[in-house]
Formats: sequence, structure tokens, C-alpha cells
Amino acid sequence: MPNTFGHLFSITTWGESHGGGVGVVVDGCPPRIPLTEADVQADLDRRRPGQSKIVTPRKESDTCQILSGTFGGQTLGTPISIWVRNEDQRAEAYKEMETLYRPSHADYTYQAKYGIRNWQGGGRASARETIGRVAGGAVAQQIFKTFLPKLEIIAFVSEVYDLVAQVPLEKISYAEVEANIVRWPDSADAERVIALIEKVRSQGDSVGGVVTCIVRNAPVGLGEPVFDKLEADLAKAMLSLPATKGFEIGSGFAGTRLKGSEHNDAFVQEGNRVRTLTNRSGGVQGGISNGEDIVFRVGFKPTATIAQAQQTVSVTGEAAELRARGRHDACVLPRAVPMVEAMTRLVLVDHWMRQRAVGGLEK
Amino acid sequence: MPNTFGHLFSITTWGESHGGGVGVVVDGCPPRIPLTEADVQADLDRRRPGQSKIVTPRKESDTCQILSGTFGGQTLGTPISIWVRNEDQRAEAYKEMETLYRPSHADYTYQAKYGIRNWQGGGRASARETIGRVAGGAVAQQIFKTFLPKLEIIAFVSEVYDLVAQVPLEKISYAEVEANIVRWPDSADAERVIALIEKVRSQGDSVGGVVTCIVRNAPVGLGEPVFDKLEADLAKAMLSLPATKGFEIGSGFAGTRLKGSEHNDAFVQEGNRVRTLTNRSGGVQGGISNGEDIVFRVGFKPTATIAQAQQTVSVTGEAAELRARGRHDACVLPRAVPMVEAMTRLVLVDHWMRQRAVGGLEK
Amino acid sequence: MPNTFGHLFSITTWGESHGGGVGVVVDGCPPRIPLTEADVQADLDRRRPGQSKIVTPRKESDTCQILSGTFGGQTLGTPISIWVRNEDQRAEAYKEMETLYRPSHADYTYQAKYGIRNWQGGGRASARETIGRVAGGAVAQQIFKTFLPKLEIIAFVSEVYDLVAQVPLEKISYAEVEANIVRWPDSADAERVIALIEKVRSQGDSVGGVVTCIVRNAPVGLGEPVFDKLEADLAKAMLSLPATKGFEIGSGFAGTRLKGSEHNDAFVQEGNRVRTLTNRSGGVQGGISNGEDIVFRVGFKPTATIAQAQQTVSVTGEAAELRARGRHDACVLPRAVPMVEAMTRLVLVDHWMRQRAVGGLEK
Amino acid sequence: MPNTFGHLFSITTWGESHGGGVGVVVDGCPPRIPLTEADVQADLDRRRPGQSKIVTPRKESDTCQILSGTFGGQTLGTPISIWVRNEDQRAEAYKEMETLYRPSHADYTYQAKYGIRNWQGGGRASARETIGRVAGGAVAQQIFKTFLPKLEIIAFVSEVYDLVAQVPLEKISYAEVEANIVRWPDSADAERVIALIEKVRSQGDSVGGVVTCIVRNAPVGLGEPVFDKLEADLAKAMLSLPATKGFEIGSGFAGTRLKGSEHNDAFVQEGNRVRTLTNRSGGVQGGISNGEDIVFRVGFKPTATIAQAQQTVSVTGEAAELRARGRHDACVLPRAVPMVEAMTRLVLVDHWMRQRAVGGLEK
Repeated sequence: MPNTFGHLFSITTWGESHGGGVGVVVDGCPPRIPLTEADVQADLDRRRPGQSKIVTPRKESDTCQILSGTFGGQTLGTPISIWVRNEDQRAEAYKEMETLYRPSHADYTYQAKYGIRNWQGGGRASARETIGRVAGGAVAQQIFKTFLPKLEIIAFVSEVYDLVAQVPLEKISYAEVEANIVRWPDSADAERVIALIEKVRSQGDSVGGVVTCIVRNAPVGLGEPVFDKLEADLAKAMLSLPATKGFEIGSGFAGTRLKGSEHNDAFVQEGNRVRTLTNRSGGVQGGISNGEDIVFRVGFKPTATIAQAQQTVSVTGEAAELRARGRHDACVLPRAVPMVEAMTRLVLVDHWMRQRAVGGLEK
Repeated sequence: MPNTFGHLFSITTWGESHGGGVGVVVDGCPPRIPLTEADVQADLDRRRPGQSKIVTPRKESDTCQILSGTFGGQTLGTPISIWVRNEDQRAEAYKEMETLYRPSHADYTYQAKYGIRNWQGGGRASARETIGRVAGGAVAQQIFKTFLPKLEIIAFVSEVYDLVAQVPLEKISYAEVEANIVRWPDSADAERVIALIEKVRSQGDSVGGVVTCIVRNAPVGLGEPVFDKLEADLAKAMLSLPATKGFEIGSGFAGTRLKGSEHNDAFVQEGNRVRTLTNRSGGVQGGISNGEDIVFRVGFKPTATIAQAQQTVSVTGEAAELRARGRHDACVLPRAVPMVEAMTRLVLVDHWMRQRAVGGLEK
Repeated sequence: MPNTFGHLFSITTWGESHGGGVGVVVDGCPPRIPLTEADVQADLDRRRPGQSKIVTPRKESDTCQILSGTFGGQTLGTPISIWVRNEDQRAEAYKEMETLYRPSHADYTYQAKYGIRNWQGGGRASARETIGRVAGGAVAQQIFKTFLPKLEIIAFVSEVYDLVAQVPLEKISYAEVEANIVRWPDSADAERVIALIEKVRSQGDSVGGVVTCIVRNAPVGLGEPVFDKLEADLAKAMLSLPATKGFEIGSGFAGTRLKGSEHNDAFVQEGNRVRTLTNRSGGVQGGISNGEDIVFRVGFKPTATIAQAQQTVSVTGEAAELRARGRHDACVLPRAVPMVEAMTRLVLVDHWMRQRAVGGLEK
Repeated sequence: MPNTFGHLFSITTWGESHGGGVGVVVDGCPPRIPLTEADVQADLDRRRPGQSKIVTPRKESDTCQILSGTFGGQTLGTPISIWVRNEDQRAEAYKEMETLYRPSHADYTYQAKYGIRNWQGGGRASARETIGRVAGGAVAQQIFKTFLPKLEIIAFVSEVYDLVAQVPLEKISYAEVEANIVRWPDSADAERVIALIEKVRSQGDSVGGVVTCIVRNAPVGLGEPVFDKLEADLAKAMLSLPATKGFEIGSGFAGTRLKGSEHNDAFVQEGNRVRTLTNRSGGVQGGISNGEDIVFRVGFKPTATIAQAQQTVSVTGEAAELRARGRHDACVLPRAVPMVEAMTRLVLVDHWMRQRAVGGLEK
């Protein structure tokens, strides 16, 4: 099922950017987890357009409705259907897309794969699809609040174009990240990033960057050691997000420039816990979490939609020039942060339930 | 099923490095595909120990037997069971591992997850598990020979430690890669890599690097646009291989340092094909192959097993020093090449069959 | 995913009888299949309450909305989300169920499994859940109209309590079945069934019966020969419907009273087709369709909700007497017919796509 | 994956009746479960040919080897590969099957589906395939011994042709069933069944019958309420066994002849347990186990292979007469009993793990 993610805790997303809305069915959620629309809305608000001056000014409140699966503020153990109506639809703004393929978008590949596409606003390839993921991640978060209250999942923008955040990982805090509109880990330093994004937008251009995610206090033992390694499922989760081009965990590509004697994480005993002195493994060894912080990075390309003229072809094969109208993000990174968090939650909750099924979390 | 990979064409691998052997069950293979043990053996030989002076000297012939699923040299459409017996088992060489956790190996996490582990030779975490993957990939390759004879999947070692291959992608050839024991794309240049690996080994140390993979003549339309994006499934496939730390497609992390106007791939019409002038997308747009070369890179950490003394702890929590004996690769990259190819084939054949199921490959 | 059915063509249903509604996400539907709300509504109308004097008088129009997955009257290849709002909700009519377990209903087992339940109108265990199945089956039917126009799937009520329809299988027609409110294969004979149902209802009692389903012109080769045998998937599909107690295919349980020499279906050649002289196999041999009519029977128990007083216990363990109010079917069989058809379509379309994936339908 | 059964605890079977053997990969088994080859062999011996005078005299010891997944007599949590070599292969005895389709066998449908088949001994359609299921069921049984020691799963032959066992369900015991070669619940009564089978064989004919299965002390709460109802998964499991034609649970088809007032199971409180006065539900309500005995019946057709002459066609379309040689069961029922038990165990263990994953078994 191409629109489903997860084995035991799964989400199935649906919807196009123009049409009846977008939504998600969350299946496999344990019963008696506190869940209200407000829990979901809080995360959707971090993802939605118009939340700050550096993101797209599309006016979508992205108000969610829970249509099933809860009763008296608690989950029933039955599927949770969450729906967000589409509001600010301006199909006419996309009229050109009916006949032209936007460079580095999915217009052409959808047409080639399906022989049909909803060209209004990107259709299914629109980033609106991620609403369902963020909503599903919010449900997962409620499970963690109940069962793993110390678990912390913090994503943040660590690079925008050539700007690199300088905060050490152990200093990263959710509050600080959320304290500025870039979701930069150091609010005092965020202004230069904002200035860059605004400058790029004024040029009709766009920039990409890197989101880093850190998971603290994950249980030891999550991850299946062969195909469903924790880092493999995280990699898939991240590369399934729009505009992502790369994933690395722990030492990542930089680790390929170290020797084994420099790279290995020595073990030490700390009370009744086995710890590592360094964390080049990124919290995962042999596909299984080892209790250290899980740390990974996700590369996002610059937004494909730009206001500058671009060379393309029409659906009938004629050369054409395209200049995007519509309202777009000059940099998707700030809005990508809750998406990365949501996908991380989904991966972790699924593995946590898989581990529960084999009794691996019992003491 | 944690030991199964693929939806329509799937492999289920089994086996530990010490014990009755390792194997794979390939399910979903179409009928009447030519398949003999020789087809599988050719790929296993590229993966096996002892194939050259720069890999581990373990003496394993890795001879495969097809136990089911073929008849008269053709597939039956029923499950293909392939078995490789373990030969050069020296459990005593691993005796220390019964009580000590090897740094940056899976010993500790297996123990923590399962409360038990086969400590002989790494057990299920041994790279011997990849035999089943390579065998499965060989079956996939037979399907391609039948249905997509022009499809070319070439993986090669593009970086070892700080050495970087300089061959342009369009010049890469399978023959040249296989012409030297590093699987370096330029045999004339391979000697300096060999020298590096031998020097590192003589120091009791290890190095990592990067494998690049290029897929030529893939059909347009492979990949599901949301969770099972082609790059997402490739990322998962690669990060599920032992020792991998990163994945990037097309422009990858470097692409985050470009602006949208520099990064977008302009479309041009070329006869009845839509092409792109550049290929920063890496052959995939919106999760779906666009007919350009699929290009991605996989980062491998330096081998965790080194002959130098390392700090660790015992299963009972005492500090200890470990100095690996046994026979290991100072650099896994040359043997990783057929693994990367196998996983790529598995991803592609599965998506090709998924596309067939919805009629997407019919003209 | 417990609320998902199907591998390649799948439905995920959601919703409780009281709350925001019920719905389905259909995933894996090929693109460019004609589909409008009218196509779905036609089947929903055959399932809905209030359609005749012998079914529950609940006033639900069961009007569907397609929220995603179509464009210009055709499927996009993306998930199709279909929603039916709940209308005639009378939670107060179910107030007793908050504290009492209805005999032979799912109240107790839901409470025991989940520790919570939506007691209004049966919650997720309500037959309203089957709306999603019927809607999904309507989408499947559109695929058949496009690709297998000769395929005929006809379910009908063949037994109610001790009344047995006498029409030979080859005389069954969809038009005749739909020509009477029982969905009895012989309209002239339907009055005695209607009289029985009305009498039983007047007694505050209920009756069950048998639905027979016949599939004509199914392709040869559908079904996987081991676990996913065609009859195995049909059996699961049918036993997943509310109130079902039995499934038999071809000769069924009666076949256990024949000897092999009486039971075997002799093969004969008929032009370029291999046929069988008899059809005790029920159109499936070795789990795979053989081109003869697929014939199976499904047993439905009498409706659990009856107006007579019944002995039960409360959620706190006290003995109690329950006398159902609310509005119920004295016989579910007429409304079960479209459910059986829908599940049959879902099984067949999934196997048809699986067969397509391995190329088995190509000539 | 057509050759895989189960979601969390899964088996993948492989192998044809002639060739390298048959086997199974068991995935998802919890770690530290005691498991040796003897545990598996005990069940295989109950299934194997030649075990008594009333079954096929094929000489196959069906000796199993565990190739992976255990260490020191305990499961590792990794895949368990079990292999049984084929021994008594007489391909020549099946020579006729190369060109003739056996009536009511899978020869024709395999040929039609795949365009190729291993005609020796039935290939993949041979009942030898069930060796893998029985082996998988034996592993499941070890889990139950550890976690649910009171759980009892007893299958037995309740009907052969027109002979019907008269033992009340509460009197059925495993010891009594295993005390006679028919697996009849009353050894004193078994002689007449043996006499019937021997007579039928002497006539070159065959008979079918019914296997009943009773599960005692199953936990409350097993089963997912919509598609994966416990009875739905049991129905699929049973109909996936060779030669099965029907499944019914609790009151089954006979229940369609009762009125609701006669059929409903009244609830009563018994200490801290909710019980039912009758058990027409068969231990499952709304798809979920209610703690009463789970009782179901499986109909098996008479063995298709008979020694009498039969009408058939050849692969090239000529009319032909077939008279089976080879060695066959005149009645498969005695050997079907361990198959039914194995499939029941597989269904239950999978649902037990699913329930564990959502925390449903915690108190």
C-alpha cells in the first residue's frame, strides 16, 4: 500500500492540494491514550503556511477534525480518521501547470506514470500531503507522553544554504528552537538566517539546507537488525519527505574520512548502563538503538518553485518558458522541522510496538 | 517481518555466521525466468572473502545450492530457496566475544534487545547475512535480462578514506570497475587505493569510503509518490547494509549549497522523450523515475574490527581491553559493491512489478 | 494493519456508528478508471437501512462524498477517500448499552480487549462499518467494467431460516435477484420469505440464512497456490463480515459425503479451453481459478438484536435483563448481499492485480 | 508474499515434493524460547506418511534440521530456518502427469497460471508443503508452553464419509485422540472408521470428512474486530490447507436454522469472569475471543487421487484416461489433524503478539 507507512502503528494519508481536503487514517493506536483535536492542531500549526514572514503566505488555517477513533477524549483502539479541509484554493493560479511541466517538480513524472494528474497546486505531490504525517505524528507523541515521558525528539534547522548553526548537540533545546521563526537552535543567531531567506526571496530565488534531529532517552533495543534497522527506517522516512536529497546518521559521510581507530565508540560501564565514550554510531549499532542520543541529518534541496524564468517543455512537447506565480516558500526548512519530527515519531512508535510484541521491553 | 525485504518480489534471509549456513527465500519471482546456480554464484563470488589480497582471507567458497523453485533451468513462480553452507568456522577465534562487547559492533545491542546472542563470528549481525541479499539480487537480475535487457546497474568504489575517484559518471563501465580488485572506476588509478588499504591493514587499522551507484535506462514511472518514493526505498535498502552511515541521491548534501535557480533541472524535448538538461534530481522527481540516470552515493564507515587495542566492557560490566584476532577486511568497500548492486536490483524489480500491477508499463 | 484489506488494491475502513461518520481509503487503484459518486452511491443504496419494509427503518441516506483521488471523473492513481456522514444518530436509544452487554454482540469483547468502547449504536462493531467495504467494492467494480467487462459477480439470498431457494445456479440473474426486496433468486417465490421475516419481526425475534455467490467469467489463474489460495482469501473476506458463521466453496461440507470417484471433476477439452464436466471444485483448484463458475456459500446467524427479554450482565457484574429498543433488521440477509458482492470484488481485483504483476495475464 | 503466513509471527514455506526438500523460515519468534529439533520432529511425525496402515505408505522419515535461529537450545529472536530433505522420490511414478492433468488436482491450474510446472509428485501443490506449516506450528507451540501453559489446542477427526463421532466436546482429550490411528475422539469407536477407510482403499476410491478443532483457555481479547477477526483468520488458515472445502465456527451453518431467541448466548457472571451460558458463538464475538472454548469445523473433500480410471485431457488437448499409480491416502483426515492444529497455533500466536503490541494483555 503505497500511501501507508508503518507496520503496527500505521498511517494512511490521502488527498490532493485542491479538492475535498487532505487527511490521514491512523491505525494500530493503543486504546485509552488521551487525544483531542487540540493535540493534533498544535503540530499542524507548526507546519502550516502563513505562520511567519519567511514562509509562504498561503492562507490555510489547516484546522483538523477527528472523525473517528476517540471517545470521551481517549483513543478507542479503532482507526483514527483526521481530516483537514482545503481552504485557500486558487486553481486558476496553477492554470499554466495544466500544460507546462515545472522543472524539478513531479508534474512530468506523474503524467508519465499515471497518464493523468491533478495539475491544480501540485495535486498529490503538494506538500499539503504532509499534513496527514504531522497529524499521525501527533498521535504517536500522545503515546510517548503516556509510556515514555522522558523521550525527547527535537528537530531543528542546522544549515540554510551556507549558514551553519554552531550550537553543540547537548545544548539543543526544543524551547530555543521554537523561539525563532527559522527554528534555528540559537535565537540570537537567527536574524542572519532570516535576512538570507528574505534576500533570496526578493531575488525570486530559493535556498535549501539541513535539518538535524536528535532523540534523547530512547529505549535500548529499538530496531530490527537486518532490513528494518532503525537507521534504515529513519532514512526511508526522511527520504519520503518532499525535497529531501540525503540522510546521514551519527558520523555520516564525514565518518568515511576517519580510520577505525578514530571512529569506534569505546564502551564504558556507567552504573548499570553500558555507555559509549563517543557517539559516532549516532545512537544505533547493528540497526538497534543503544541508549545514546539518536542523531541524524537530512538534506533538503532549494525549493523548486522560483519566480525566475525557467526553461521547460509543454505536455505536447513544445519548448516553453515558465515563471512561477502562486505563493511559495523561499526556504522550506522551518516548515520541514515538524515533518521530520513527525516521521521520527512514527518510526519510533512503530519499533517500540514491535519490540513490545516480542516482549523485549519487559524487565 | 523483520527479515523480509520487498513487497511483490521479496527476499527473506536467514542464518548466522556460525551454524547450518545462511540462505534466502525469494518469493514472487515471475515464472519461466532462466535461473541456474551459476547465475547466482557469479555474484556471490564477487562478494566472498578471499577473492583478493585486500579483503579478508577467510576461506569460504560460498557455494550456493538452489533447493526449490526452479525446474529445467527455469523459475516455477514458486519460492526459490537458496542455501550457502558455512565452512570456515572457527568459533574459538571468537571466544572473547562471549564475554566482551566489541566497540561499534552489534554485540551489546543484540544482548540488550534479545537477552541472548550467538557470539560466534557476529551471529546474525555478520556480513555473511548479505549472501542472501546478493543471491536474491542475482535472481532479480535474471528478470531484468528477460524484460529490461538495456537496464544497467553499476556500483563502484568512488572514495576510500581521502582518495576520490575522478572518472566522470558517463564514463563509468562495469568492465572497468571489475577489472581491478578495489572496484575502482579507473584501473590505472587503483594502485594508490590498494596501497592505502594495505598500509592501513599493516597498522592494524581500517578505512571506510563511499560507493556510488548509477542506474542507466531505467523505465520512466518507477516509484510510488508518497512513502515508497524510489529514493526512499533505495535509502532504506542502503542503510540496511552493514556499516553504512549515509545516503544521498543526485545533488545530495552538496545540493543544499545551491540556489533554486542553480539547482533546478530544466526540461527539454528530445524526440519523443522528455529529458532534463542537468540531473541534480538524480533520475528521480517526486519519488518517481524520470528516465535520466539514477545516481546515488552510500557512505560506509571504517570497519569496526581492528587489530589495535580498544577499551570496552564485559557482559558483567567490567572494564576490559579488546584486541581483535580473527580475519577481517581493513576496508569493506570492494566487497560492498555487489551488495549495493543487489539491493538496488531488489528495489527496482519490486517497483517494476508494482508498476506492472497497475498497468503502468503498458503502452 | 487490522483495518486494511487487500495487498495491491486495498481498502482501509474507519468510523463508528455514532460520531463524524464512516469512510474508506481505497489505495492502489489504477489510474484513469471512470469513477463518480453515483457509481459508489448505487451500491450503497443497496446496503442502506430503510430501503424496504423488511429491513431496519433507520433513516440514513448514506450519501457518499469522494474527497480525493479522482479528477474530471477519472481515478488519479492516488488514494480515493470516500466519506459518509452519520445522520440518524440516537445515542439515547443505546443508553442501556453503556452499562449492559448485549448477548451475542461485541460489547463485552470490545470492553475486554480495549478497556473502553463507544457504546453508542455498536460503535465500530456496527454494520455501518461495511459502508466502507461496499464503497471499496464499487471502485473495484469500475476496474472490472474497464478490464474484464464479461465478469459477473452475483450474490443472492439462497436460504432464510428453513426456506430454501430452488433456482438452479445457471438460471441465476442479477436482474431477477434485484427485482425483489429479499434478493431472492426467484421473485415469484419471494413472498413466502417476506411473510416469514415479517412474522418473525412481529414476534420480536430474528432469523438468519445463507447467501450464495456465483462468479462467472473469471480469468483462469487467479489465486496464489499456498496461503493466499483464492478460496482462502474469499473465506477470510466472508468471515470478516458481521454475523457470518460459515463458508463453503463448491461441494462444501456436503462434498465430505461423496467418494473421490463421485466427487472428482473430469476434464474435457472444449475448443481451446480446458473445462470440467462437473464443478464440485467450485471454480478453484489448488487455490487457483480454473475458469469454471466460482461458487460459494456464506452462513449468517440470526440477528443478535431482538426485542424479547434476554439474560445478561452489567459492566459491573450484576445480572440484568435486556430488551432491545432501537431499530433493527429481523433478517440481515437482504442487506448482506451487496456486502458479499463487495468483498468478492475486493478479493478478485486484488488477485487480478497480483497476477498482472507477474505477467500472468499476458498472452 | 504469497508463501508467507502471519503478521508478527510469520512462516514462509518453500519447496516442491521432488527436489532439494521442503522447508520453512519462521520469523518474529521471541527470543529465549526453548526449541530443539525434537520439539519439531514430534509434530512432523504425526503428519508424515507411513505412520499407520491407513495412510500412504510413502517412505519419508521427514527428518528436520534447524539451520539457524537457535543457540544452546533457545531461540535467538532471529529467523529460524527448518529444512526437511526429500527422500522417497520416484519421479518416474509421476511420469504420466507430465502430459495429463489429474482431475480435481492443481495440475491444470498451475499450468494455466505459470505456463510451467514441476509435474513430479505434485510439485508445490503436494501436501509436502504442509511440512513447513507443521514445523512453524511446533515453534508457536513452544511459545505457548512458555507464556500460556494452560492453552490447549485439540484437533480431531469428527466425521469420515457418513460416520460421525459422538463424543461431547467437553469430553475430548488430546490423549484419547492420539490413542488411535484415525485420530478419532473415541478409540473404542475407531475400528469402524478404520474398516471404512480400508474398504474404500481396496475399491481404489477415497473418502473425505470433517476435522473439528477446540481451543481451551485462550486469552480473552484475541482478534481484530474488522478484517482480521479471529474467525476470519482461522477460516483463511483452514481454507489454505489442501483439500478443504468448508469452515464453520460455533453454530455454523446449522445456526442459520435457529431464531435469534434460540441462538443468542446469554451472559452470566462467574466470579470475576463474564461467561456465556451457551457457546453458539464458538468462543468469538465481534471477531474477538471471549474466553469460552473456540470451536470450529473444517470440511475436507475425498482425496482426489484414486486408483479408478478417470476421464481427463492431456496438455495438448487430447482426451485421455488416467488411473493413478503412486502411493496415496484413501483418507487424508488422520494426517490433516496436525495440519489443522498447526494453522490454529499460527493464527493464535500471531494475534497474541498483536495484542501484546498494543498492551492489551497487560493487567
